[in-house]
Amino acid sequence: MDTTTLQIDTGEQFRIIDITERVAEWLRGRGDGLCNLLAQHATAGLGLMETGSGSEHDAQEALRRLLPRDDDIYTHRHGSRGHGGDHVVPLLVSPSLTLPVVGGRPVLGTWQSIVFVDPNVDNPTRQVHASFVADGQPGGR
Amino acid sequence: MDTTTLQIDTGEQFRIIDITERVAEWLRGRGDGLCNLLAQHATAGLGLMETGSGSEHDAQEALRRLLPRDDDIYTHRHGSRGHGGDHVVPLLVSPSLTLPVVGGRPVLGTWQSIVFVDPNVDNPTRQVHASFVADGQPGGR
Amino acid sequence: MDTTTLQIDTGEQFRIIDITERVAEWLRGRGDGLCNLLAQHATAGLGLMETGSGSEHDAQEALRRLLPRDDDIYTHRHGSRGHGGDHVVPLLVSPSLTLPVVGGRPVLGTWQSIVFVDPNVDNPTRQVHASFVADGQPGGR
Repeated sequence: MDTTTLQIDTGEQFRIIDITERVAEWLRGRGDGLCNLLAQHATAGLGLMETGSGSEHDAQEALRRLLPRDDDIYTHRHGSRGHGGDHVVPLLVSPSLTLPVVGGRPVLGTWQSIVFVDPNVDNPTRQVHASFVADGQPGGR
Repeated sequence: MDTTTLQIDTGEQFRIIDITERVAEWLRGRGDGLCNLLAQHATAGLGLMETGSGSEHDAQEALRRLLPRDDDIYTHRHGSRGHGGDHVVPLLVSPSLTLPVVGGRPVLGTWQSIVFVDPNVDNPTRQVHASFVADGQPGGR
Repeated sequence: MDTTTLQIDTGEQFRIIDITERVAEWLRGRGDGLCNLLAQHATAGLGLMETGSGSEHDAQEALRRLLPRDDDIYTHRHGSRGHGGDHVVPLLVSPSLTLPVVGGRPVLGTWQSIVFVDPNVDNPTRQVHASFVADGQPGGR
């Protein structure tokens, strides 16, 4: 199985980062199968959304409303303010994302981009494990 | 890899539509492997839930509470009211869903159905990309 | 395709249960590929999160805030209080989770555990369908 680890520079603020090109570049030439992406962190997620039109900001605000960054409401408290809520993010925005790959290209809709969702302000660098599983019946049926 | 595109008629209102039969029909006869379903849109998701007992309505109301359809709170605004919130839906309800397939049938619990979640009122027809990846070791171990 | 069903004892209260060891044990020796886990229920989900530091409790409280256990707001009502909301949980916390497997071990981050999320108080025993799909090109490229 082909695998790699993508290093994502997320900086020290809540960031939603488009990683579509990074993933597409890695998949180039790999044929048909499934690509699994796994954000290897307990305070991050992966998603598919439109980028570049303001929805990254809207999504951040929505997550802040849904999981308030008020430390008092969380049992798990350490690090920066809101870190307790950051640990709940992966339940709502899963760190595991699987995409179909056809002819070495990830299948996506016109307005879909792959994003790394990182509310955590304490870790400026993050890792995404990428794996490509080839179809076991390459000739199709 | 076997793939197809399912056209889903979602109409011009917030809809949660059961597509289990459509998927099961396409998988029939395909053996063992994984089926990935991808809603190729930036304002839709896929899920597994019970249908036919009112939970579709409950889920719609819940999503409306979680992502209010008040245009003033979103940066990304165009189209119909609430469209900004629609763009956040895919982060909470992922457009990518992977299911095990055994003997050409999707594995599901008794009360589980595959649903297409479409809050978007502007696009009456939607597309789901389906792919089937066969196990690379058909004989098992 | 290798498959099994894991029985999970969730008891009669809202529980988030770490099943990492159960999954890892089943995968041991299986080589490279993808593992799909499917909670075969309409009121449960699967996730990846840190366990043992209080985040299970925080996640439960967050889900209770997001999907209030007030029966009056749900159409689908039967069983114990909050059961209507339990049916919406799988849209936010998907019952399907796919993980990469390398050398017979699930790939996870240091702080990531596989959890079974069961808000339902009426069913003390739950089932997770596990499947392992081997890479179709075992030699890699």
